[in-house]
Amino acid sequence: MQAYFDNSATTRCIPAVREAMDRIYDEDYGNPSSLHMMGVNAEKHVKNVREVLARILKVNEKEIVFTSGGTESNNMAIIGCAMANKRSGNHIITSSIEHAAVLEPMKFLEEQGFSVTYLPVDEKGRVDLAALKEAVREDTILVSVMCVNNEIGTIEPMEEIAGIVKQKNPKAYFHVDAIQGFGKLKLYPKRMGIDMLSVSGHKINGPKGVGFLYIDEKVKIKPIILGGGQQKGMRSGTDNVPGVVGLAKAAGIAYDNFEEKQNHLYELRRHMIDGLKNFDCVTINGIEETGADTGAAPHIISVSFAGVRSEVLLHALEDKEIYVSAGSACSSNKPSLSKTLLATGTPKDVIESTVRISFGTSNTLEEVEYCLSVLRDLIPVLQKYVRK
Amino acid sequence: MQAYFDNSATTRCIPAVREAMDRIYDEDYGNPSSLHMMGVNAEKHVKNVREVLARILKVNEKEIVFTSGGTESNNMAIIGCAMANKRSGNHIITSSIEHAAVLEPMKFLEEQGFSVTYLPVDEKGRVDLAALKEAVREDTILVSVMCVNNEIGTIEPMEEIAGIVKQKNPKAYFHVDAIQGFGKLKLYPKRMGIDMLSVSGHKINGPKGVGFLYIDEKVKIKPIILGGGQQKGMRSGTDNVPGVVGLAKAAGIAYDNFEEKQNHLYELRRHMIDGLKNFDCVTINGIEETGADTGAAPHIISVSFAGVRSEVLLHALEDKEIYVSAGSACSSNKPSLSKTLLATGTPKDVIESTVRISFGTSNTLEEVEYCLSVLRDLIPVLQKYVRK
Repeated sequence: MQAYFDNSATTRCIPAVREAMDRIYDEDYGNPSSLHMMGVNAEKHVKNVREVLARILKVNEKEIVFTSGGTESNNMAIIGCAMANKRSGNHIITSSIEHAAVLEPMKFLEEQGFSVTYLPVDEKGRVDLAALKEAVREDTILVSVMCVNNEIGTIEPMEEIAGIVKQKNPKAYFHVDAIQGFGKLKLYPKRMGIDMLSVSGHKINGPKGVGFLYIDEKVKIKPIILGGGQQKGMRSGTDNVPGVVGLAKAAGIAYDNFEEKQNHLYELRRHMIDGLKNFDCVTINGIEETGADTGAAPHIISVSFAGVRSEVLLHALEDKEIYVSAGSACSSNKPSLSKTLLATGTPKDVIESTVRISFGTSNTLEEVEYCLSVLRDLIPVLQKYVRK
Repeated sequence: MQAYFDNSATTRCIPAVREAMDRIYDEDYGNPSSLHMMGVNAEKHVKNVREVLARILKVNEKEIVFTSGGTESNNMAIIGCAMANKRSGNHIITSSIEHAAVLEPMKFLEEQGFSVTYLPVDEKGRVDLAALKEAVREDTILVSVMCVNNEIGTIEPMEEIAGIVKQKNPKAYFHVDAIQGFGKLKLYPKRMGIDMLSVSGHKINGPKGVGFLYIDEKVKIKPIILGGGQQKGMRSGTDNVPGVVGLAKAAGIAYDNFEEKQNHLYELRRHMIDGLKNFDCVTINGIEETGADTGAAPHIISVSFAGVRSEVLLHALEDKEIYVSAGSACSSNKPSLSKTLLATGTPKDVIESTVRISFGTSNTLEEVEYCLSVLRDLIPVLQKYVRK
């Protein structure tokens, strides 16, 4: 049996998505900027994709800007917004457990003279709302907090954050990195007070190399990739028609029978956590409880096995065709301690023995059972190798 | 019969390329940053792609940085290089007939305080080398000139440009936008004195949404998309494994039996131009002669029919399933006069009656014949509609 439990790193692009893309590559391969019918047909597909995505988020079509993926979406939201609003202020707020695709643009902006406040989080990884209240200033132009933490799966209190930000400074924009949340949670930016929202295709069984940024039409933002003026000048470059068609197909599938899919993921999570808790040596990082109201995303478990180093367990599981991640797989494997787990106050030895299990809708209870039975055999053996 | 003659706008992604991509989407869909076997397998594909591309250009694997396409490659080369070298100088040189993906980053840099010289071109669109010699200064950090002009197909004298730049200022970098040249001409950056070279996938029958930038290892450059530190920090974001695999497959096919393919394109071009010259009202813009030593790219013809407006002809041809472009299709259809044709001194009425015919290797002589016969019927009719 094989069990791919690294769906937060990337997912398998499902056949229906590939078929939709292949049709474009084969038949409607024109450049949407071309004036002839081949161009017009391609443009229709892009328009249709905008409609699909806008309907899912309950926003306007023109508020969707396609990008090359989640990282570019985050870069555009943060750098593009800071550059367009620097006359209104130079203060930005984010959390201390953001993905590198948010933290690195923040570092870049600090080099450019912006001042960035990094909010602390509690032991479950939830942003400290009192600290946020303190931090919002008159010169705050942007607040960026993620939807679901990619390492421990905690859902951030987005609506409360939006409320606090808007109350203290109605002109400050609120950006949400929803790369781990889109497709797993229902997200309605306008109702939730979210001004910008980043999404990636390959995290939702869609294609790699494509994503989008929702930008509320009131947001002042500058493009970061310049050229032919595609997408109303907001993102130049020939439209990736097959890519956006695949992205919309994947998004449509993710939100079709959504509750059923979400319940399935929560069930996998609950089953896995119940099984893991039978081990003496186990710590669940983040929120242990499982369900739509607990603040835990349905698809991510961060678990530490005392005395077993992450990499050792990862490779032992790999031998059994079970694929998990040592921390987050999204940053290019530098052997440094997880910033998220440090911020939640997790001890160093627990951090070093943490693996992430992340589910997709095609995972099954049988795979969870298989993984648990493999762990029951492995853990006692691996613990013997503990360095004293 | 159908004749897609808009291959410089975009090409059909060939089945062999799609099959290579589908295999990755289906089997080796892991994230190259993941430590387990699924990640390692994905990483092997990326490494293999680097080898393929490096071999084609005769450069080192580590000098290839994957991007989301030609536009991002140009943005990275120009903005990334300017930002990294601003202490050495603030002067940049480019030509007046570059693609918007070069000209717009140049405008952005001017806003940031850089000084940009736009070189004139002769009536065939060739950069004025005497003007270049005059322009290179001690504080020149970057020269960017395209390989093949996207509207008229003129090949710029890259080696002579490199020679002049290096002689006058050995520290200045030379960037070439090779988006219309790669796959159509043999390009060896190291021999030709090119320090950076931009390439796009979808212009060579590869996938949309992917490209690369060759960056000589000696070039000082900063990334423009920040995050997880993929590609040695030069371009963050999960590697688009299927995309780069498709790109390499397309590049491999383009350079396999290269002379045969190039000769075929030149033959189509010669045949079309010979036929076009039978019309009294025709002007060929750029270089009329056809062949590897004439300075004309094999796949582009810019032609004007006196008294017939571009859009009118474009739509009349479209009715016969012949697809051409009114000027360049790469810029989002603003009705402004072509900068390239203005720079070559083309009269306004000629510019307004110009269409671009651009070939791909799958086009045939029969399609050329078909187009010429349609034109013989159409042109006299359309000329009756001339506004006096």
